[in-house]
Amino acid sequence: MTTAAILGSSGYSGQETLDRILAHPELELVALGSDSLAGEGAAALDPRLNGNLPRFVTNDEAAAAGADVLFCCLGHEAAAAFEPPDDAIVVDLSGAHRLREAALYPSWYGFEHPAPESLAQWSYALPEHGPVAGRLLANPGCYATAALLALAPLVDAIDPSSVVVDAKSGVSGAGRALKPSSHAGFVLENVSAYRVGTHQHAPELEQELGFPVCFVPHLLPVRRGLLATCYVEPLEDLRPLLEAAYATSPAVRVLPEGLQPELSRVQHTDAAEIALFSDRSTGRAVVVCVIDNLGKGAAGNAVQNANLALGLDETAGLRLTGVLV
Amino acid sequence: MTTAAILGSSGYSGQETLDRILAHPELELVALGSDSLAGEGAAALDPRLNGNLPRFVTNDEAAAAGADVLFCCLGHEAAAAFEPPDDAIVVDLSGAHRLREAALYPSWYGFEHPAPESLAQWSYALPEHGPVAGRLLANPGCYATAALLALAPLVDAIDPSSVVVDAKSGVSGAGRALKPSSHAGFVLENVSAYRVGTHQHAPELEQELGFPVCFVPHLLPVRRGLLATCYVEPLEDLRPLLEAAYATSPAVRVLPEGLQPELSRVQHTDAAEIALFSDRSTGRAVVVCVIDNLGKGAAGNAVQNANLALGLDETAGLRLTGVLV
Amino acid sequence: MTTAAILGSSGYSGQETLDRILAHPELELVALGSDSLAGEGAAALDPRLNGNLPRFVTNDEAAAAGADVLFCCLGHEAAAAFEPPDDAIVVDLSGAHRLREAALYPSWYGFEHPAPESLAQWSYALPEHGPVAGRLLANPGCYATAALLALAPLVDAIDPSSVVVDAKSGVSGAGRALKPSSHAGFVLENVSAYRVGTHQHAPELEQELGFPVCFVPHLLPVRRGLLATCYVEPLEDLRPLLEAAYATSPAVRVLPEGLQPELSRVQHTDAAEIALFSDRSTGRAVVVCVIDNLGKGAAGNAVQNANLALGLDETAGLRLTGVLV
Amino acid sequence: MTTAAILGSSGYSGQETLDRILAHPELELVALGSDSLAGEGAAALDPRLNGNLPRFVTNDEAAAAGADVLFCCLGHEAAAAFEPPDDAIVVDLSGAHRLREAALYPSWYGFEHPAPESLAQWSYALPEHGPVAGRLLANPGCYATAALLALAPLVDAIDPSSVVVDAKSGVSGAGRALKPSSHAGFVLENVSAYRVGTHQHAPELEQELGFPVCFVPHLLPVRRGLLATCYVEPLEDLRPLLEAAYATSPAVRVLPEGLQPELSRVQHTDAAEIALFSDRSTGRAVVVCVIDNLGKGAAGNAVQNANLALGLDETAGLRLTGVLV
Repeated sequence: MTTAAILGSSGYSGQETLDRILAHPELELVALGSDSLAGEGAAALDPRLNGNLPRFVTNDEAAAAGADVLFCCLGHEAAAAFEPPDDAIVVDLSGAHRLREAALYPSWYGFEHPAPESLAQWSYALPEHGPVAGRLLANPGCYATAALLALAPLVDAIDPSSVVVDAKSGVSGAGRALKPSSHAGFVLENVSAYRVGTHQHAPELEQELGFPVCFVPHLLPVRRGLLATCYVEPLEDLRPLLEAAYATSPAVRVLPEGLQPELSRVQHTDAAEIALFSDRSTGRAVVVCVIDNLGKGAAGNAVQNANLALGLDETAGLRLTGVLV
Repeated sequence: MTTAAILGSSGYSGQETLDRILAHPELELVALGSDSLAGEGAAALDPRLNGNLPRFVTNDEAAAAGADVLFCCLGHEAAAAFEPPDDAIVVDLSGAHRLREAALYPSWYGFEHPAPESLAQWSYALPEHGPVAGRLLANPGCYATAALLALAPLVDAIDPSSVVVDAKSGVSGAGRALKPSSHAGFVLENVSAYRVGTHQHAPELEQELGFPVCFVPHLLPVRRGLLATCYVEPLEDLRPLLEAAYATSPAVRVLPEGLQPELSRVQHTDAAEIALFSDRSTGRAVVVCVIDNLGKGAAGNAVQNANLALGLDETAGLRLTGVLV
Repeated sequence: MTTAAILGSSGYSGQETLDRILAHPELELVALGSDSLAGEGAAALDPRLNGNLPRFVTNDEAAAAGADVLFCCLGHEAAAAFEPPDDAIVVDLSGAHRLREAALYPSWYGFEHPAPESLAQWSYALPEHGPVAGRLLANPGCYATAALLALAPLVDAIDPSSVVVDAKSGVSGAGRALKPSSHAGFVLENVSAYRVGTHQHAPELEQELGFPVCFVPHLLPVRRGLLATCYVEPLEDLRPLLEAAYATSPAVRVLPEGLQPELSRVQHTDAAEIALFSDRSTGRAVVVCVIDNLGKGAAGNAVQNANLALGLDETAGLRLTGVLV
Repeated sequence: MTTAAILGSSGYSGQETLDRILAHPELELVALGSDSLAGEGAAALDPRLNGNLPRFVTNDEAAAAGADVLFCCLGHEAAAAFEPPDDAIVVDLSGAHRLREAALYPSWYGFEHPAPESLAQWSYALPEHGPVAGRLLANPGCYATAALLALAPLVDAIDPSSVVVDAKSGVSGAGRALKPSSHAGFVLENVSAYRVGTHQHAPELEQELGFPVCFVPHLLPVRRGLLATCYVEPLEDLRPLLEAAYATSPAVRVLPEGLQPELSRVQHTDAAEIALFSDRSTGRAVVVCVIDNLGKGAAGNAVQNANLALGLDETAGLRLTGVLV
C-alpha cells in the first residue's frame, strides 16, 4: 500500500480528499492533519467516521508522518509557507503554487509569496490539459478547472481577445469559514457577482491559456457545483476539437448537440460535462462546462493527480459512476 | 378615477399587475380577465383577495369592459391574436408586439405573427430608454429590460461587436405553467443555461441597441429576481454616462464604486440597481444590473408605462420604497 | 409627529423596524442607534437609504435622544442590561423582558437577569392575545407568536397535556451574526431540528398559555418565514373559536376549510395565516400558522404595539396589503 | 450472476434503483422497462448511461424478461394492477401492496384495489423492522420508513396515544411528474404542510406499529432527504432500546447524545441517522430520524430487500460509505 496524509483535513476540500482516500484501493491514510482538531478522534469531524482511522494530529505532525503522498488542503497563505518534505509527492489544493510568477501574488492573492524561488519546482496539474509531471503538483482552482476544460482544446481555434468566462459556483467553493457572503441570509434567493475583474483565478487562466481572459465569478444559492459559460469568437468548427480532446477521458463528457450540461449529473462526482452552442445573433461560440467544485474542481482532481504521479490507475478512488437523480 | 382591466390575470405577471393596481391611487380595477377562472370570485386566485373586487370574466369580456387602460398578460401567441379596443391604452406584457419586424416571429417565437401590419402601431416602452409614446405599448422582456438599463446609455461609448450579456433569472420568469424545467427537482441545487443563442430577447436587444449582442440566459434556484452581467469593450469612461442617465430616475440606482447590486434590494420592488466594474486582465468593462423579473421586468414597468401614457405620476402604484432585509 | 428611535438598527429586526417607520405616516425617526455603525451615514447600512435620514449614533445616544417611542433591537443580554428612559414607550424586540420570572433566565437564556425586579413593569405584548397595556412592551418571540396565534383562542377547548408545536423557520430568524448554523453550506439542501427541548420560546409559551407545551424548532433553507404545526387533542369544535378570535383582526386570516397557509402570502408582510385540519387516524386537530418571522414575528408586531400604545391607527406603517406572487 | 429488471425505470425511484444495480457486484440488468421511453437507448434517460446497457422496453416486456428479481417502480395504481411473474422475486416500491387490508385503498389511495386477495401474499419489507420473508416484497413508503426506524424499537416503551410524527421531505419525494406543488415557484422560499391528516402513509404506520399515530408531512425546498420529528410520551429510558436495535445495523446510525441528524450525511446514500432528545418542559421524548427519501426511503431499501431475499450480502450495491461534505 501507498501511504497518504492530509493537511487541513477539517475544511471542505480536506474532507472531500479524505472521502476519496477512504474509497481508494491503493492508498492507506496514515495521518489526518488539522490544527484545530489535533488530539481529537476522527469522529469529531463527522459522525460517519469511526473505527480505525487515526486521530487528528497537527498539520506539522501530519507533514512529518512520512507519507508517500501529501494532500495539502491549507489556506493559500499557510500553504505558501509550508515546506514540502524532501521525497513525498505533494498535491497542493490551494493557490499557493499555481502561479509561476511570484510577483503576481501580492496583487492577486494579497500576500507576498514567502518562497518565490520554489515556484519553479511546482507543476500546474490538470491531467486533461497536459501530462502530470514531477513530484510537487499544484492543483488548479475550481473556476480555472472548468474554464480550462472548456477552452484549452480551443486556444488555436479562437480569437484570444474575444474570450469572456462568466462562472457561477455553489457556496462550498468559498470554504467552511464564516463570512458575511456565506451567510444563508445573504446566499438564499440571491445571485451575486464578486471580485469582479480581480479574482485570483484570472492570472491562472492567463498563464495556462497564454492570453488574458475576462473572468467574472458569481455565487449561487447552491451547495455544490459550478457552471462556467465561456464566450469565444471561433475561427473554425470547435466541436471536433472538443470531441477529440476528451474522446478517451475518464472524467470529461462532451455532450451531443442539443443537450445541456446539468449540475445534478456531476454533483458529488469527479466528472465534468461540456457542451458547445452557437449564438444565432453574433456567431459567437458558447462553451458551457459543469463540474463539482469540490470534486473535479478540488479533491477529485487532486487524487487523480496523485494517482498519475504514483503510477496508479488514474481513476482509483474517484467518484465517476452512478446515475443518481 | 381612471379604469383598468387585466387580461390573463391568473398568471404571475397578471397577478403582479393586479398587485400594483390595488395600490394605485388613480386606477380603479373594472375587469379581471382569466379564461380559466372566469365565473369565480377573486379569492379563487388568492385568499388575500376578498371583498369588493369584481369576479373573474373571460379575457374577451375583460377586453370589452371599456377600461381606460388594458394590461394584456396573455401568452405571446394569444396576445398576438388579441385585437386591442379602439380607444384604450393597452400595455402588452407579452412579446407579441416588441419586434417591429414581423418576419422575426417564426424563427424567434415559433409562430407566424397573425397581424404583421399592426406592429407599426406599437411602441417599445422602456421609460428610461426613451419617452413613452402612443396608445399601444409593448412592455419589454425581463432580460431585455436589465440589459437595456445597463447598456442603452453606453451604445456610443463601447465597441458594439464586443458585447456579451450573461443573464441569470429566478424561476418565476418562466411563468406559472408546468414544465420540466420549472420542476423543483430540476431547479433546486442547479443552474442551467437555456435556449443558448436562440432566446427571443436577443432580437429585441438588437432592435433597441442597434447592433446584435451575444445573449445567454440561465435559470437560478431563486423565485424572483434577475441579474445581468454585461461585458463590453469601453471606448471611454462609462461611469459618467451611467450616472447621467439615471441621475433623476425614480426606479434605477447607479451604485457607488465598490458596491455590488443585490437581488434582495430589488426583489418585490419595481427598482433596478446598476454597478460598473473594470476587468484588470483585459480592460473590459463589466456592467451588472439587477431587477425583479416580475417588477421592473414586468408588472412594475407596465404600470409605469400606463402612468406615463395617462399623464399620471410616473411612480403611482409602484413598489419603490422600503428597506426590507 | 411622534418621534421614534431604534437601538440595534443594523441587525435584521432593526432594519425591518426602520422599514416600517419609514412608511409610517405618524412616526418621525430621530435616532438610528448602532454601536458598530456609529458615525456613519444611513447608506452604510443599505444603499437604498439616502438623503435625509439621521447618521448612526451609539445605542446609548439613541436611547437618550428623547424619542417618544424606542424600539430596542439589541441582543437578549444587552437588552436586559438596557435601562429604559423614564417616559418613553419602549418596545423590546429581544427576549429580555418576556418572562415574568427572572429565575428562568439562567437556564433558558444562559445569563442571570441583571434587573430581575424590573420585569414586573413590562407587559407581554401580542395585540391579538390581549390588550396592549403600559409603556414597557415585551415583543413576543417569533415562534411564540405563531404558536400563540394558533393556540391562544383554543386553550379552554383542548387537552393541555396533548400539545405539540413543531415549528420551522427561515434563517433570518437567527439574525445577521455569523455562526456555523447560518452558513449557507449548512443551510442549503438541509432541514435541522435545533435546541430540541431547550429553546427559550418554550417557557414563553408556557407563561402565556398557562401550561407547558412540547416545542421543537427547525431551521429551513428559506430566507424569511415561519410555519408552526400545532397538534392538539380537541375537546370541542375548534373552528368557531378561531374564526371568532380573528373575525375583525387586521393582521390574521383564518383560511376557509381545505386551504393551506402559504409562506409566500405572508412573506415581507406583517400578516398571519391560520388553518385548521383534523387527523383521520387519531382525531387530533392540527392548527397550522404561518407568519414572516421578521414581520408579524418581529418588526411588524413591534410597530403594531407602538401604534396601540400611542393611540394611533393599529396598522399604520405595517405591510398588510398586496398580492405579490 | 443474478438477473434483474426494472419497471418504471424513468421515474426517480426507477432511476435510483438502476443506479444501485449498476454498482451491484451480483446483479446483472437484463431489462429496462419504461412505457414512455420504450424503443430508445438507455442514454435517452441520462447521458451518463451509455455503452452496454439494454435499450428500453415496455414495462410488460420487462416483466416478461425472465429476470430473477423485478423492481416495480410504477405508480400506485399501475403497480396494483401488475401481475407478478410466477417465480421471480418482486420488490414493489409503490404503495400498492403495503396495506394488508384492501378496504383501506379507496379512502387512502383513491382507488379500489384490483387484486384484494393477492395482498396476503406480500410482505411489508423493512429489514431493520423484521426479517424479509417471501418472494413478494412491499417496500415501505419513505415517510413510513423514517418513522418506523425511529419508533418501531420503542412501541412497548411509549404511550401509543401520544405519538405525533411531523415529517419534512424534499421535493423528489413527490416524483418526476409535473404538478403545481412541485413547481419551483411554489417550492422555493416555502415550506408547506400537505394532505394533513389524510396521507396514505398513516395507515401503513398504524399497521406496522399496531396503533394509530398522528402524521403530518411537509414539503421542503430541498431536492433530496427527509427528516421525521417523532414526539412520544416515554414510559422508560428509550436510548438503550434504540442503541440495541441498531447496534449491528449496516444502514442505521444512532447518534451519541447531543448530536443532530443531518440531511447532508445521508443524502445520496442508503443510510439513516437517529437521535433522541428529551423535552425539558413536558418530559416528552423527541426522536429525530433522517434518511434520503430516494435512498433508504426507496431504492436503497429495495435493493437491500432484494439482497436479503436472494441470500446475497445485505449491503451489495448500496451507497453506504464516504464522507462527502
